[in-house]
Amino acid sequence: MIVNRQFRLKRRPHGRVERADFDFLESPVPEPAEGQAVARNLYLSLDPTNRIWMTDMEQYMPPVALGEVMRGGGIGRIVASRHPGYKEGDLVSGLLGWQDYCLIGAPGELLPPAVIPDGLPIPLPTLMGACGMTGLTAYFGLTVIGEPKPGETVVVSAAAGAVGSVVGQVAKILGARVVGIAGGRQKCELLVKEFGFDAAVDYKAPDFLAQLAAATPKGVDVNFENVGGTIMEAVVARMNLYSRMPLCGMISTYNEDTAPRYDLRPFLMKRIRLQGFIITDFKDRFIEGSMQLAQWHMEGRLKSRETVVEGLDRAPEALNMLFDGTNIGKLVVRI
Amino acid sequence: MIVNRQFRLKRRPHGRVERADFDFLESPVPEPAEGQAVARNLYLSLDPTNRIWMTDMEQYMPPVALGEVMRGGGIGRIVASRHPGYKEGDLVSGLLGWQDYCLIGAPGELLPPAVIPDGLPIPLPTLMGACGMTGLTAYFGLTVIGEPKPGETVVVSAAAGAVGSVVGQVAKILGARVVGIAGGRQKCELLVKEFGFDAAVDYKAPDFLAQLAAATPKGVDVNFENVGGTIMEAVVARMNLYSRMPLCGMISTYNEDTAPRYDLRPFLMKRIRLQGFIITDFKDRFIEGSMQLAQWHMEGRLKSRETVVEGLDRAPEALNMLFDGTNIGKLVVRI
Repeated sequence: MIVNRQFRLKRRPHGRVERADFDFLESPVPEPAEGQAVARNLYLSLDPTNRIWMTDMEQYMPPVALGEVMRGGGIGRIVASRHPGYKEGDLVSGLLGWQDYCLIGAPGELLPPAVIPDGLPIPLPTLMGACGMTGLTAYFGLTVIGEPKPGETVVVSAAAGAVGSVVGQVAKILGARVVGIAGGRQKCELLVKEFGFDAAVDYKAPDFLAQLAAATPKGVDVNFENVGGTIMEAVVARMNLYSRMPLCGMISTYNEDTAPRYDLRPFLMKRIRLQGFIITDFKDRFIEGSMQLAQWHMEGRLKSRETVVEGLDRAPEALNMLFDGTNIGKLVVRI
Repeated sequence: MIVNRQFRLKRRPHGRVERADFDFLESPVPEPAEGQAVARNLYLSLDPTNRIWMTDMEQYMPPVALGEVMRGGGIGRIVASRHPGYKEGDLVSGLLGWQDYCLIGAPGELLPPAVIPDGLPIPLPTLMGACGMTGLTAYFGLTVIGEPKPGETVVVSAAAGAVGSVVGQVAKILGARVVGIAGGRQKCELLVKEFGFDAAVDYKAPDFLAQLAAATPKGVDVNFENVGGTIMEAVVARMNLYSRMPLCGMISTYNEDTAPRYDLRPFLMKRIRLQGFIITDFKDRFIEGSMQLAQWHMEGRLKSRETVVEGLDRAPEALNMLFDGTNIGKLVVRI
């Protein structure tokens, strides 16, 4: 019997995710009924939002129920199909879950996975990163909400992460001055040397505020916000009149049981536009965005970095890398 | 000698404004030099933002300096002019200050007053309220930032105030369902009976949250925010996916030395667009807005209420009415 290993949510984590928050169970690989298909999962995407799905706070999708397979994005290959939309061998991308095999078309499915091109000169982890959902998050959040103009200053936090590294590179392509915020000297060097940022600021350095001020002599026109907390407050203090703040995430606070709170007076006084978004808001434009990102990538203008963790069983511990900042670029698990 | 009485800021208030925060001085009426004019002030506009100007927090204009005449909007009549833009008898509107006479064209003037039409069938207090800067604040904040669509639910706080009462009426004209938040039964009745709101919610009532929920069965699509604090949080909790929040003011917090702080997670999860604004952001469209408001007013579709306090010397105590909620509609001082 071929076994399907699954992480099922056992209890809602407090603070960091622990292996004991899940049951890691084995069951037979499901047989597709009429209208269903089965994918062998190849890669699992680990994203900050996974941590939100584990909570029961008000959120943009239903929380993962206790006992349910942990929700997660991934890439897989169809191994059996009785579904008209998928044929054996198709490469698919979507919410495949923290498991070896995904039953597609099952009751309660939130979004059907999408068939993606097989044979592009783009590695699968990159198709999940700079050229996938992560890249689209950066691309639409920056261009549609941030609207950077040439010469403006764009600041992005978690800049060495999957979204941040794309935000910075796209902002450069659009002619902005780009400042990345990341933790530690190594990441800051990577931002400037590998990803072409104009400046990088180390939030772990004692002179973080002075570094930020020096890197943004004309203030901040777009703050692509990924982390929240005191880093965000430092950037908001430097935001200009009529500046924009795409609110993509607040990862620094997702392990907290109570959310931090913020002063909104600067948003009034400086007429800042704050707009929260989730990548599915832009689903009607995914084709456009994907093709643009792939083109820039193939032209060498958009670099991608991935951190690949081996083995499904390591998914819970690997997720904590996002919060510890020990990954660079897109974090994926090879199943 | 004709005397010019002036309130000059003596110290920055803590909490409520006190008469002792000002010096009330007498001096000769200034003689205009070449390029200057003198206006006799007729009405003084009292606005929540006056309280901000008295502080030295980061704000959208320079704070009023200690010793300086208190800044304030007003309407006056030119009594002497050596300025090519004004002639004796002109009616002017602008930052005339808390004084009997204003010297126009003096060094350090922030904005020159505008000449306004004399002889429209609109009383002067209304030209400062529903058909003046206050009305423009409501009109542009609602239409440009709030963008209510017919059938959507618009909530406005401080709804019986100068801005709020216009927001609600304009939202009704645009086809929205309009819910006003105000303090006390009398104001709530006024909102429905006089201003035509669909519902009014009393924030002083013990069942405020239940009233708000009952009045917004389909949630909130536009929250025109005037007050901040716990009232704002209650409305944000009911805001819909992709809803908009023009941030006009946070009056409930202006008497506090430290600003309250807010959870931004709902803005992310519900993809709320928050946009702070100040009326001068729309100055290129003032003619359009003024004519539209005047038309609606003359057609009887936009009602205006004013609270007129007699006597310049009462300006400091009258300002507190805004914070106590004891005014209805536009609050002005007749000088």
